[in-house]
Amino acid sequence: MSEYTPPLRVTSPAALDTLARCRDLVLPALRETVDRLHPWLGRMASFTFGWCDSDGTPTVRGTSNNSGGGNGGGGGKALRPALAVLAAEAVGAPAQAAVAGAVAVELVHAFSLVHDDIMDGDEQRRHRATAWKTFGVGPAVLAGDALLALALDTLAHSTGRLAPATRSAAMSLLSTSLVELVNGQAADIAFEYRPWTGPEAVTVEEYRTMATRKTGSLLGCASALGALLGGAPPEMVTAMSLVGRDLGTAFQAVDDLLGIWGDPAVTGKPVFNDLRLRKKTLPMVCALAGSTASAQQLADLLAMPLDTPDAEWTLRRTAALISKAGGRSFTTAQAHLHLDRALRTLDSVAMERTAAAELITLSEFVVNRTH
Amino acid sequence: MSEYTPPLRVTSPAALDTLARCRDLVLPALRETVDRLHPWLGRMASFTFGWCDSDGTPTVRGTSNNSGGGNGGGGGKALRPALAVLAAEAVGAPAQAAVAGAVAVELVHAFSLVHDDIMDGDEQRRHRATAWKTFGVGPAVLAGDALLALALDTLAHSTGRLAPATRSAAMSLLSTSLVELVNGQAADIAFEYRPWTGPEAVTVEEYRTMATRKTGSLLGCASALGALLGGAPPEMVTAMSLVGRDLGTAFQAVDDLLGIWGDPAVTGKPVFNDLRLRKKTLPMVCALAGSTASAQQLADLLAMPLDTPDAEWTLRRTAALISKAGGRSFTTAQAHLHLDRALRTLDSVAMERTAAAELITLSEFVVNRTH
Repeated sequence: MSEYTPPLRVTSPAALDTLARCRDLVLPALRETVDRLHPWLGRMASFTFGWCDSDGTPTVRGTSNNSGGGNGGGGGKALRPALAVLAAEAVGAPAQAAVAGAVAVELVHAFSLVHDDIMDGDEQRRHRATAWKTFGVGPAVLAGDALLALALDTLAHSTGRLAPATRSAAMSLLSTSLVELVNGQAADIAFEYRPWTGPEAVTVEEYRTMATRKTGSLLGCASALGALLGGAPPEMVTAMSLVGRDLGTAFQAVDDLLGIWGDPAVTGKPVFNDLRLRKKTLPMVCALAGSTASAQQLADLLAMPLDTPDAEWTLRRTAALISKAGGRSFTTAQAHLHLDRALRTLDSVAMERTAAAELITLSEFVVNRTH
Repeated sequence: MSEYTPPLRVTSPAALDTLARCRDLVLPALRETVDRLHPWLGRMASFTFGWCDSDGTPTVRGTSNNSGGGNGGGGGKALRPALAVLAAEAVGAPAQAAVAGAVAVELVHAFSLVHDDIMDGDEQRRHRATAWKTFGVGPAVLAGDALLALALDTLAHSTGRLAPATRSAAMSLLSTSLVELVNGQAADIAFEYRPWTGPEAVTVEEYRTMATRKTGSLLGCASALGALLGGAPPEMVTAMSLVGRDLGTAFQAVDDLLGIWGDPAVTGKPVFNDLRLRKKTLPMVCALAGSTASAQQLADLLAMPLDTPDAEWTLRRTAALISKAGGRSFTTAQAHLHLDRALRTLDSVAMERTAAAELITLSEFVVNRTH
């Protein structure tokens, strides 16, 4: 397998157009939902979406729907809402059918970021201070809770014209995904207490299960919800769920690559962030699982403390050893493997052609993105 | 209005029997649900229910269903599950019909306690260290999230034999209650930043709205869910919701009384806890709203710092002035007013007699309890 080559900073205009279209479609409903919160919670929620500064002053992103390419200026890529919208269109429904589902998954995603940043002690996200760093831990806990409460309420109440069975199935998809998500996050944190090497070390298989739960479940929920709300039959909902899950697992693999080799100017996180935090990500787990000399050198390096003056050198060397031990190429291959599987699943169901093409473009973006 | 007399420490055997019966009925399903969590999350969840110590060692409470009177030995009164069960029985259904709803509201309650303790910085609950104090803030955030995720999932999946419309209505009740709950908690925290006196001071009406959201909404959800899952028609579900909301508002008033005048040996919290935390509770808000000399003296006292050697004297004097300014008697009257309204609502609907009697006994316990 050839050595991983970092993607060029191509912006994939088609994928960014799709993301922008879906974000613009969903934004008014998302804002309306957030308006139902107590003003103080509403301000924190708006901050997490990049609509305003910590004091409530609207940002450029917050005053127009034009976010200029899915990065910078706060807010996220809104990948999950896009998946929901495209899934609805792919099964022949109008985009509008997916809006409640798209809002719900974006709210759940925002909730998980706010709480994860507290758990991980992360101080920066999307080029700004995180919510807990800005408002304090207690307020950020409540802001996260509020986002989650809104997600459920949106799905329970914005789908009034649907058959009760569909509404009930939608809530079921979301709640299953939530349980998976917290169990995945717990597994990820529990990995921290495991040794780097030896029989107790985290295996690639354990990592994959964790990533599918932590990231795949919500992307799977997004695409399944879109199909369900778009009126698709159960087997199509299941297929769309599988597509999202595979994309999510690929997404997490790419996240792991960017967490080590990503450009801080693009990712909005410090260089070598995951190495600094000593995270057991896929490139690391895979590199250590090998029996090469590099794997042994890597293990030796990890046994050394990081709070020395030459920490930068250590981090650079760690990253190089992970590459050399095959962790980088394996993780890239994993991302492509899950992408390919998602594309094959997409190919197996009869879909509306334009939406299908957009779904494929977006899927490829998930793997080739630089942020 | 006569001066408030603290209730004797009668244990109200009938109410405690009802609580124990409902708790025993719900416990197996609650445990089964918690078992679906990642082992690390499951241990934290079990700790919050008082089933085990921080290291996972089962407590006496955890190994038997006999909790010896609803207090001590960890765990809570399980008032919300009892309301759900009794509401189902009151509308003529078997107790078993309410179990999924009872489990869900108890999980939401546990979630809110775990997160509220983080926000309030409370170090003790139910005679033990709180979850964040025991496991750390990050893990406690995730444990709370997990409890909430399970609540939704229980309701979405344990009600399979019900009509989709009922299942969907149940999810709707729970999500509405969640949004109210976070908005109420936000209002409570926002009160902290308001002045004690003057035009910007918290009014009794604002306090009541907050308490109904923060506490009434979940008790209302519990009784409404019980009636709904028991097959009651919509008007009965609404009536039961109102009963629970009034009980919740009464419950919060009593909580406020116990937060100042409760016996620490019984409440499990430090003496004068709410005064120490400078909380704007109903007795305080009401006392300050008056124009008596005591109200003025109280305001003067609150302007003084608490970190002096005579802090204990200040707290005792603060409590006495709240009483003298009428805050204690007004709050007691409020609790009884909401209890009376709950009992009148109960009286207005045709119910199964034994369950109705138990509901009345439990309602009176809410107001006369000492913990």
